[in-house]
Amino acid sequence: VLCADADAGRKISQSKGCIGCHGVNGISAPGTSYPNLAGQKAPYLEKALKAYRDKTRQAPLMNGMAAGLSEGDIADLAAFYSSLKPCP
Amino acid sequence: VLCADADAGRKISQSKGCIGCHGVNGISAPGTSYPNLAGQKAPYLEKALKAYRDKTRQAPLMNGMAAGLSEGDIADLAAFYSSLKPCP
Repeated sequence: VLCADADAGRKISQSKGCIGCHGVNGISAPGTSYPNLAGQKAPYLEKALKAYRDKTRQAPLMNGMAAGLSEGDIADLAAFYSSLKPCP
Repeated sequence: VLCADADAGRKISQSKGCIGCHGVNGISAPGTSYPNLAGQKAPYLEKALKAYRDKTRQAPLMNGMAAGLSEGDIADLAAFYSSLKPCP
């Protein structure tokens, strides 16, 4: 099992610009259709990110964002977002 | 805009069996890859349910579950799950 690093995940969320749609703390802006990620299940986040990366899940914006992610990046992002408190 | 009814959504979540994977209160069981839905953005939930229904998003289990949903069912389910508190 990869040793996922939530702090590294936080840095990726900033450098990759995830925070633009998903919010700095994983709660997206009201009224948008960008999903909240804070407190989401890590295995689900990994599954979704891999699907976007491999284009088995179609979404232009996310296919682009996930394109360059390594297995380690995905594990770190999943660890980061799942570690956040979902309470707005 | 459809008048979404969260209570009707709760009944659908029970009759359709959503609660089996997503939990009675929209928090899935620990360690599973079924996403938490409580407090998720309603527009995202609608988008995802329509994608599963129309099979533009591939997931055998969810394609089956969403197959029979009407626009109204989807609006009600989205209203229901987005109304739930995400704090476990």
